[in-house]
Amino acid sequence: MEVSHIEHIGIAVNSLDEAIPYYEKVLGMKCYAIEEVADQKVKTAFFKVGDTKIELLESTDPEGPIGKFIEKKGQGIHHLAFAVKDVNQALSEAEESGVKLIDKTARKGAEGMNIGFLHPKSTLGVLTEFCAE
Amino acid sequence: MEVSHIEHIGIAVNSLDEAIPYYEKVLGMKCYAIEEVADQKVKTAFFKVGDTKIELLESTDPEGPIGKFIEKKGQGIHHLAFAVKDVNQALSEAEESGVKLIDKTARKGAEGMNIGFLHPKSTLGVLTEFCAE
Repeated sequence: MEVSHIEHIGIAVNSLDEAIPYYEKVLGMKCYAIEEVADQKVKTAFFKVGDTKIELLESTDPEGPIGKFIEKKGQGIHHLAFAVKDVNQALSEAEESGVKLIDKTARKGAEGMNIGFLHPKSTLGVLTEFCAE
Repeated sequence: MEVSHIEHIGIAVNSLDEAIPYYEKVLGMKCYAIEEVADQKVKTAFFKVGDTKIELLESTDPEGPIGKFIEKKGQGIHHLAFAVKDVNQALSEAEESGVKLIDKTARKGAEGMNIGFLHPKSTLGVLTEFCAE
């Protein structure tokens, strides 16, 4: 397994309209894209900082994963995504090391990336994503 | 405010002895330093990935901040640290924008860095740190 960098940090927020001004005006970052990912029931806003992105996630459905997360834990960091060369290979290697997977194979995520999630019970409480272009 | 990159991501773990092998063997990262920060009642382990560090935090005292965090929320991502040029200036600018501060002025953190924390109630649920060498 070779992780080149942290591709993005996913942060659950109540409202992009409230969160984007905080990241732009207080932290001085620039939102470069807003995208709805219907499959995940979220609307996302992206910021680039160094070689990492911040992905703000607003739920579009209380029954979606971000809606449920916010109901249970409130706003906050939701997941950590590591950039790998090949998501399917990284998922296989993790499974061989005893990690429980959420996604057995790669699927399409925001920005057309190939993504796959590991189960936080196997990753010391951090919902972990592998990500590749 | 100018944030150059994400300096580190702080992750609360029950045990470094359990967590370090996961990051090394499953994710292929290399722990390059272990340091106790008595002030914060934690033992830390550092990994570099791209221009960001992962800082694992094991509590050395159940009454310390990480001990209390784990008791309440379990293991997981604890805070996000942004690299800035001058921590005191960044804290002042954030306060002027209406952000509540945990640290009014910079103090010394792990690796001899100057650090200062913002209050998560003002930062949409993300415990946020500014960090400079």
